[in-house]
This record gives sequence, structure tokens and C-alpha cells, in this order.
Amino acid sequence: MSADPVAIARDLLRCPSVTPAEGGALVFLEKTLKAAGFTTHRMTFSEPGTPDVENFYARIGTGSPHLMFAGHTDVVPPGNEAAWTHPPFAGEIDDGVLYGRGAVDMKGGIAAAVAAALDYLAAKGGKPKGSISFLITGDEESVAINGTPKLLDWAHKHGETFDHCILGEPSNRDALGDTIKIGRRGSLNGTLIVHGKQGHVAYPERADNPVTGLVALIAALKAEPLDHGSKLFDASNLEFTSIDVGNKTVNLIPGEARARFNIRFNDLHNQESLKTLLEKRALAAGGGKIRFSFEWEPSNADVFVVEPGPFTDVVANAVTEITGRQPILSTTGGTSDARFIKNYCSVVEFGLVGQTMHAIDERVPVNELVALTAIYRKILDRYFG
Amino acid sequence: MSADPVAIARDLLRCPSVTPAEGGALVFLEKTLKAAGFTTHRMTFSEPGTPDVENFYARIGTGSPHLMFAGHTDVVPPGNEAAWTHPPFAGEIDDGVLYGRGAVDMKGGIAAAVAAALDYLAAKGGKPKGSISFLITGDEESVAINGTPKLLDWAHKHGETFDHCILGEPSNRDALGDTIKIGRRGSLNGTLIVHGKQGHVAYPERADNPVTGLVALIAALKAEPLDHGSKLFDASNLEFTSIDVGNKTVNLIPGEARARFNIRFNDLHNQESLKTLLEKRALAAGGGKIRFSFEWEPSNADVFVVEPGPFTDVVANAVTEITGRQPILSTTGGTSDARFIKNYCSVVEFGLVGQTMHAIDERVPVNELVALTAIYRKILDRYFG
Repeated sequence: MSADPVAIARDLLRCPSVTPAEGGALVFLEKTLKAAGFTTHRMTFSEPGTPDVENFYARIGTGSPHLMFAGHTDVVPPGNEAAWTHPPFAGEIDDGVLYGRGAVDMKGGIAAAVAAALDYLAAKGGKPKGSISFLITGDEESVAINGTPKLLDWAHKHGETFDHCILGEPSNRDALGDTIKIGRRGSLNGTLIVHGKQGHVAYPERADNPVTGLVALIAALKAEPLDHGSKLFDASNLEFTSIDVGNKTVNLIPGEARARFNIRFNDLHNQESLKTLLEKRALAAGGGKIRFSFEWEPSNADVFVVEPGPFTDVVANAVTEITGRQPILSTTGGTSDARFIKNYCSVVEFGLVGQTMHAIDERVPVNELVALTAIYRKILDRYFG
Repeated sequence: MSADPVAIARDLLRCPSVTPAEGGALVFLEKTLKAAGFTTHRMTFSEPGTPDVENFYARIGTGSPHLMFAGHTDVVPPGNEAAWTHPPFAGEIDDGVLYGRGAVDMKGGIAAAVAAALDYLAAKGGKPKGSISFLITGDEESVAINGTPKLLDWAHKHGETFDHCILGEPSNRDALGDTIKIGRRGSLNGTLIVHGKQGHVAYPERADNPVTGLVALIAALKAEPLDHGSKLFDASNLEFTSIDVGNKTVNLIPGEARARFNIRFNDLHNQESLKTLLEKRALAAGGGKIRFSFEWEPSNADVFVVEPGPFTDVVANAVTEITGRQPILSTTGGTSDARFIKNYCSVVEFGLVGQTMHAIDERVPVNELVALTAIYRKILDRYFG
């Protein structure tokens, strides 16, 4: 191999790029890819009230098809550094395992993609059939405002078009090759407010306790599932994440009670259908006696899915060939930057194993890093083959 | 009549005795009762962390029976004084109605009792058959720590014993004479805590949402009444007054959820039986799957009742004779200082009409003040007759 994913991963892990710090990671990627013939761009995006964020785009080739590797070099903070058995930003290898914040989420994934691309280009005399690009942000672990959405918009305005994307997030649950994510559920946040009538707790008949009404509505909204799942998705799910009445007076029935909730929804729903469903269920449960209202937060996390087909076959077959595993085509889990990329091209997520992400002693076995590089290398061969 | 309750009430209303201020009210009472031959005591009680509070005790006569009039001259703040049609501390009379903070709760009641006592003494040549006393605190509307409990303890240590007490709180709901309170429900505060497992909202199967469990327990605890009432009491009642999870992160399932509640309980229960009942019901509802615990606050508000008999007959007959109404012997409503007095003697509550208590433009029709005085006067005649 002309490129060593372990060396690249170690170089990246040594950059202290806790969001929004660039930490040297994007400078390193630019140097590495420019040397291999990529045209590179580094740019900073700003928005009032948020920190400036550096981003990176690189492309080689001008033709199609155009395959993009997407990802982020920013990482979550290391937490209690004293609790790490190896320093979080040292890139140390111990007994065949590489330690560091970002090892699996997702500097390891980026290192594998870069190494695979360099290896592929070396094998093809430095030129791909079609185009390969890297779209790397420094703002995935935070508010995701000055990162992938603006970077995609920038690329679009500069005439860049993409056919397919591999987002190298740690998609596997237990072992490398067990899971490719081909979609994500949508996410919608809201607040349910019950309006009662304040009064003295000794005279409940003169008051209308909104806590009682709120509890009844929550129980009713949770009583039936939102759906029973679809061909490619699990059932949608509603979780009440907080109830905050804030009444500190023990002998007072409060006037209002509020509960926050989050819905993860599949392709049987959209944001509007969910709002209609919840309001209808609450109305039925309240029987005209509970006065309630919903407040809905804006959401940029709609449900999406890539239907299994030629592109997912390329990825899945490469995974099976290297790991021996038949990956599940999954739509579970939280949101990711794929929710922005899907507006520009088909996107699947495949990377390392997620178990140690965001944890103390985040780490990746070196052989998994090498295997992921081999998978990406096979994908490049078949995609352009 | 030798004593004018309206003049006494106006003098008291002009004292700005917002808790814990004495405001001149106890000084006035001492001067008035001393002039009529009472032995008087003013004393200040203290407790770390609370304001000092002035209190007052006066007695005339040495024999038995001993009837105590109890009450408080402290008042709640006037709120927005600009919203009053007459100043809250001016004692103004307009169209036969006396305005001021404390008019019904309960300077009016004290004025009526003082006027009735002076009138009775004048009729008896200045000496009662038995003893009449006044036990007046300045700490009823606040924490009730440096008031009635310490005053009763002081009296007990000084050899004072009481046979019966009339507490002049505004006991009537709609019209003078509609209600005598012969007891009060107990009050118990607690917190129900559900212990879950924190996790990401996108992976609810890896977490255990305590909000869901808390809502289920609250619904179960509210599903059945605590009892169906007793001979002298309405049903006990449980109200959840606040739920406070405090989880500000929209994609996080919290680890714990807490709900505060208050129980007003009748003579079918005591504090221990309620704790046992709620824990049993929660256990049944949780089915071993919801991990919960209760925290119970100490309570000095046990249930109590004076069984209807000769003393309540004296009061009720006097009420009927003056007002033409058959008073209900009630045990409804909040707690009062009667919960302390009942440890020393039988106590009933009868005073003015409560509708404007604690409100802007608290007020009492002058004729009701006169009628209450006549009722107290009749009680004195019959009690000592």
C-alpha cells in the first residue's frame, strides 16, 4: 500500500480539534490530499451567535460519476483526561489498539478513506475514472450550523455536483461490517402545555390542576405506538424528555404545566402528519375537558432513506468480501450530517464500530482501521469499475 | 353597647401589621383590654433563621370554665396598593362597608370578640363567671413558628389551662352564619421520585425513561380516591403540585424524574397510614418494573375534629339566633392555627365571610361586623350561663 491509514489516523488524532477548534486537522488533510493531486479549498463560515468554523473541500478528477467521502474532524471534549489510560490527543498504540478522542468518531474513518483514495489513485496512475472528493467539516459535534449545510451550499454554488456519498461515521454496532446505515429517522421536538387554573391545594374543586391533565395526556399519547414500523424502518417513537412545572409552593395548585418531548419518526410520517396525529390523540384523550396546546420547534431533520439498489450493493458487497459479514441495511440511531447531504445526492453511512465513541478511552484496533481501508478501496474499484 | 366593634376594627386596620411587623396592633389591644381589667402579656419569640415575632396574651378571671378567643393581627401584604379603591391601611368606610387589609382575615374578627367581651364584662359588673382570654399572634400568615405554638407553650408553662377556644378566622363561605369549622383535614407533603437510566433519545431501548414511569405512577395514584369521606369529613385528596425534571437537552432521556404532591386527609387516615397506602399503590402500579422512592416532609398538620356536642351547640345556636341561618359544621379548607390549639383544648372556628380575604379591596360590611359581635356576645352569655 502506498498510504498508511494508521499513520494518517495518528497524525489526525494528535490534532486537538475539539469543536470548534480546527486543531491542525484540516491543514494536515489539505497538505496530504494536495500532494496527491487534489484541488483543495479551506473556508471559514460564520453566523452571529455561533463560533466561526473552518471547513475543507477537495476534489480530484472532473468527470462523472462523482463519489464524495464526507466527514468531520472535530471531536467532543475528552472529559476527565486523568481517566484515560492513554492521553486523548497522543495517538498512542498499545497492544494493537490505537487510542484517542476521535479514533472511531471519526478521524479513523477519514484516515481510512484518505488512505484508500491515495492507494486507488496510485494504482490508476494518479487519475480516477470520474471524480473523488472529500467534504470535511469542523462543526458536526456542535450546532452543525457553520459546517456541512454551508459547505454543501458553497459547493453547489461553485458548480459541484455529486452522485453518491459515503459518510464515514461509526455505523457498526458490535463488529466491523455488521451495519450500513442507509437512512435515518426524522426528529421533531415539541412541548405540550396544559392550561389549568391556579388555586389553593385545600380547595381543589375551585382550581383545575394542570399536572393531572398533563399526566393524563402523556399517558394517552404513550398508550399506542405512533406506527408499527415500515419496510425499512423501525416503529416511530415518542419520548417525553422533561416535565417542568416550577411550582415551589407546596400548598398551591399551579396554573400551567409543560412537558417537552422528542419524536424519532420513520417514512410513514412527516412533520405535519405527526403534529396532526398528536393533536388529534390529545384532543380525544382530553375529552374537551383538558385545555392544552402544542409548541413545535423547527426541525431540519426529516426522515430519509436510500432504497437498496446498485449503490448500496457496491458498499455491502465490499463489506462482505473483506469482513465476511452480511451487513444490515439499517435506519436506526440518531441524526447525522447525512440529513443535509441527502438533499444533494444518495448517501450511505459506513465507518468503524461505534462502541467507544464519546467515551473515555475512545479507541480502534489497528486491524479494523486497515480492514475499513480495504473496504473503501474495494468500493472505489467497483464504483468506478 | 359599651364597646363599638367598628371603632376597634378601624383602629386595628390602621396598624400596618404585615407579617412579621407588629404595626401597633398588639399595643392597641393591650391598652384596650388592660383598661377593661385584663391581665396582659406581650412577648417576643425568636428562632434562628426567622424574624422575631411579637405576641399577646390577656386574661380576665381566675375560675373555670375558661374560654379563649384566638387569632392573629398580622396580615398578608396589600399587593398593588394602586388597585385598591380605598387605601389598605386607612380603615375607610364607604356605603356601609369597611375596607382594609385584614378586614375579614382577621382584624374584624378580633374586633368583634373584643367588643363582645367588653360588653359582656360591663353587663356582669366587670367580672366574668369563669375566665375569658385572648391569645393573639403576629405570625399566622407566615411560617407560624414564632407565633401560636410558642404562645401556647408559654401559656402552658405559666399554668394557663383552657377549656374551649373560638378562633375567629373567616369561616363562612358566602354569608355570615353559613359555616362553623369544627375540624380540619391533615396535610402531608411528599415527593415521588422515579429512578430511570439516562440515555440518547434515539436509542430508547438502551435507556429507561423515568418520565414515562412517573406519569404511569401518578396516573395510578390518582385513579382511585384515597377514601370516600367519613361522617364529619369529605374524602381525602391527593394533588400533584409540581413535576420538575430539569432536563434541558432535547436529545437526552433523563436519569430521574421528581413530582411533588400534597395530601389533605380526613380522620380515616393518619400520616403513617397514608405513606403505607401510597407506597403500596405505587408498587402495584409499577409492577416491579418502575424503580421509585418517596420522600416525605415532616408535617405538624394532623387531622382533628371537635365532635358535635354542647360546645358546638352553644356556638351554632348563637349563630342561628342572630343570623337565622343553620350553620354547617364543616371540616373543609386549609390548615389554620387551630391545628396547634387542638392540643390544648377544644377549638372551633367562627368569624366573618372569607370571600375577600387576601384579595385587593378586602372588606367587611359594617352590619356583619355588628352581627358577629352579637353572636360572640350570645356565646359568652350561654357559655357562662
